[in-house]
Amino acid sequence: MKTTEARLKLTRLGIDTYRENVAYLHRDCEVYRAEGFQALSKVEVCADGRRILAVLNVVDDADIVPLDALGLSEEAFDQLGLAEGETVSVDHAEPPVSMDAVRRKIAGERLDQAAFHAIIQDITESRYSKMEIAAFLVASGQNDMDRDEMLYLTRAMLDAGERLDWDEPLVADKHCIGGIPGNRTSMLVVPIVAAHGMLIPKTSSRAITSPAGTADTMEVLAKVELDIAAMHDIVRKQRGCMLWGGTARLSPADDIMISVERPLGIDSQGQMVASILSKKLAAGSTHLLIDIPIGPTAKIRRMREAQHLRKLFEYVGDRLGLQLEVVITDGRQPIGRGIGPVLEARDVMQVLQNDPEAPNDLRQKALRLAGRVLEFDPDVRGGHGYSIARDILDSGRALAKMQAIIAAQGEQTRDYPLGKLTRDIPAPADGVVSAIDNLHMARIARFAGAPMDKGAGVDLFKKLGDPVEKGEPLYRLHAEFPADYKFALALCEQHSGYTIGAQGDIARTLVEF
Amino acid sequence: MKTTEARLKLTRLGIDTYRENVAYLHRDCEVYRAEGFQALSKVEVCADGRRILAVLNVVDDADIVPLDALGLSEEAFDQLGLAEGETVSVDHAEPPVSMDAVRRKIAGERLDQAAFHAIIQDITESRYSKMEIAAFLVASGQNDMDRDEMLYLTRAMLDAGERLDWDEPLVADKHCIGGIPGNRTSMLVVPIVAAHGMLIPKTSSRAITSPAGTADTMEVLAKVELDIAAMHDIVRKQRGCMLWGGTARLSPADDIMISVERPLGIDSQGQMVASILSKKLAAGSTHLLIDIPIGPTAKIRRMREAQHLRKLFEYVGDRLGLQLEVVITDGRQPIGRGIGPVLEARDVMQVLQNDPEAPNDLRQKALRLAGRVLEFDPDVRGGHGYSIARDILDSGRALAKMQAIIAAQGEQTRDYPLGKLTRDIPAPADGVVSAIDNLHMARIARFAGAPMDKGAGVDLFKKLGDPVEKGEPLYRLHAEFPADYKFALALCEQHSGYTIGAQGDIARTLVEF
Repeated sequence: MKTTEARLKLTRLGIDTYRENVAYLHRDCEVYRAEGFQALSKVEVCADGRRILAVLNVVDDADIVPLDALGLSEEAFDQLGLAEGETVSVDHAEPPVSMDAVRRKIAGERLDQAAFHAIIQDITESRYSKMEIAAFLVASGQNDMDRDEMLYLTRAMLDAGERLDWDEPLVADKHCIGGIPGNRTSMLVVPIVAAHGMLIPKTSSRAITSPAGTADTMEVLAKVELDIAAMHDIVRKQRGCMLWGGTARLSPADDIMISVERPLGIDSQGQMVASILSKKLAAGSTHLLIDIPIGPTAKIRRMREAQHLRKLFEYVGDRLGLQLEVVITDGRQPIGRGIGPVLEARDVMQVLQNDPEAPNDLRQKALRLAGRVLEFDPDVRGGHGYSIARDILDSGRALAKMQAIIAAQGEQTRDYPLGKLTRDIPAPADGVVSAIDNLHMARIARFAGAPMDKGAGVDLFKKLGDPVEKGEPLYRLHAEFPADYKFALALCEQHSGYTIGAQGDIARTLVEF
Repeated sequence: MKTTEARLKLTRLGIDTYRENVAYLHRDCEVYRAEGFQALSKVEVCADGRRILAVLNVVDDADIVPLDALGLSEEAFDQLGLAEGETVSVDHAEPPVSMDAVRRKIAGERLDQAAFHAIIQDITESRYSKMEIAAFLVASGQNDMDRDEMLYLTRAMLDAGERLDWDEPLVADKHCIGGIPGNRTSMLVVPIVAAHGMLIPKTSSRAITSPAGTADTMEVLAKVELDIAAMHDIVRKQRGCMLWGGTARLSPADDIMISVERPLGIDSQGQMVASILSKKLAAGSTHLLIDIPIGPTAKIRRMREAQHLRKLFEYVGDRLGLQLEVVITDGRQPIGRGIGPVLEARDVMQVLQNDPEAPNDLRQKALRLAGRVLEFDPDVRGGHGYSIARDILDSGRALAKMQAIIAAQGEQTRDYPLGKLTRDIPAPADGVVSAIDNLHMARIARFAGAPMDKGAGVDLFKKLGDPVEKGEPLYRLHAEFPADYKFALALCEQHSGYTIGAQGDIARTLVEF
């Protein structure tokens, strides 16, 4: 690696480049011309013993970057950690050394633990460009990693971040692999399990491709962005919490890789296993229940695939000292009635309040999951978890725990009304609801504005097997803004997401619950 | 796809983002907040029936992008083709439809011609982000494409660009797959073949990862950036030219893919075949000679691999109507003496001038290649090409043709002196030069400043098999700038690139020449 003698003034450019470091140099700047950076896409910025890698953008406007300056995007600037105006030098950067391992993976080789550690370390330190991350993800996608490599990857991701320590022998968590709208069981499982006295410090992400995540929905009721100290305090007193996980640096490599994986729409089992398990272990979990829904429009469509995935979770979890159970559940349709933060929060509160209108499928699924989590308790007899969970819910203790957690996190002061622009979507014919497309319903809710507009979404009136008459409403669309309303409606009109047929047309499933 | 009603003023941002469209929106801009772009990395910018895709960067500085404006990077702005201040709207963009095919390729499926056409069309129209291109390149790399898929890819790349038409039945070209420093045979083959009267309109790239390309070296002697009309004019009169190929839009998808492939350092045979053949067919070639050098530090290291690659070239070339011949040549060491534009131009001119000091390996290789090209002429008897080429060279007709081509392209008015900072690198022991590392020598020359500083590079005094005494100079380093000199020298001191051993240590090779 060579270092230039020319020196530049550091400038922070107010540009947010989504987890990719970008450096900006003026085209007429001396270093740029002398060093032949044209064909290079990557430079190393050094000062005061610190160095970061960045992708180079060339600037032709001295108002953006003066000739004697080096601009850095916001995250790159923060990462370098120096003040504006300090002197920096800029160098040709070789690709990170661990790219050799990525190239070996591309060529079909098996990588060892050291290689995965090196790759994840470099990703965590923002030494990879997005295209290098994409290359790694594709090369290690689908059938390209064996289960030991998944273990290595998980361990490397875990080792690269902070790790919470609750100083208790049993720290429970549950996680669903996603893909089913309205599936807000965590907001029921946490208060039930915490009311039992088991520690369940839940951190969740916000929705990225779905219309609502647990953090988005909980935020309708309470504050979710608290620091680690506040989290510890709440969990010590309440035995549980429901917070946004982004404030802790748990598996930071995962956050960076997700920023590439999601826009690419690639979703490999190995990455999923490593992502989920590294996050949960980093959050200090000792016992984890994983929910794999299957159905024609779920992430996993066949039992065979679900069982394969279950074994991968078990293999990696066992080797990392995580007590792990997997349940395969019915993913043929959305869970509950609401899709979108406000509507899903309403469903959750109805179940907690034992409201006769509460969606029973959400209640049943949450009770079964909570029951399985409770059975992690050595004092709970196998098979007794469900009835303990039901007792906690029916007695109002779950509701009381939820209210205590909300109070501890801080009640939401902002009011989130339901979207005022509404339209009921009618059944096109008489018959029975024989299919509901999870993907399409999620898309309609997103077009309507969820999760950004918390009151936007879809309220389902009919579920699988319900008889309907022509013209009877299947669901109600809610939006806040006219543009969103119009475009969501256009999508509903293109396809409602519902299939009306006969009872016998409903896809059958053989799952635990 | 939904469209917003909010409208923004188009602004051209003076930022060059290397063939990736980038759009800039202020974080407090209404559209940005209302549309929930946070997690999206891609937007569609529309106005007046035109639309482009761009990656979104969020700006916090209203001096860079005001709240009511949408900024575009230079290439994106040019592509949209509207004036500053015009009203544009910005939408959520779905990934390009052809990404479905990329995902199928990632999953191991075989793609058909239509899928490759769709992918290449979207890449050509800048609808792919760099990470999407990386995903495609990795998924279609190494052993992931069969030869029909390579054919489909080549045809798709060819169809996506302009195609030159010379209106003659025989348009010759030669191409080396690269990796051997100093291998400037094209600058000899073109004048020899053109002097014979055969049409050879050569376009070349500039060096990207090597210390000199044909265009960089020719530029020491003549102008190389001419438009298509000028090129036609020169070729009609001189029967040949040596120009930079970047001005013509020949296989534009290739240029875009190379901008991802090179920084990633990935190099798959399928991509190489498609890249070379699509460029040559687009340049109007009907007859093509391909040079595959093999050696321990060449791109191709074993005869088996070279033959496999040869068959791929033949398979695809035959099906696209290209008369194609492949020669496998000695790639064990650099060709000629100089490495770097000025030094390589000196070698070429010495050969053309029949200078007794001219490097004989360069002369012999060029004569053999030219001979094979001449044999594309139906009037040349098989096996007679070499002696015709030699006659053209020895008689001075090749030199006269070179001078005519230089005059036609326009003599170089700038003087490029040899780098004044020099150092002779001595042999560490008595013995015989038993190996020269192509990669390391190229790297030293690049560190010294080549190809940007045309006078920088390495001048070899010893070649394979030459006896040396301890302390005798192996080569001379040339640099123009002290920083470059220092760092190139450090690299030489780390490893000279030469191995001194015995005659029997020299790697053996069985190649055509």
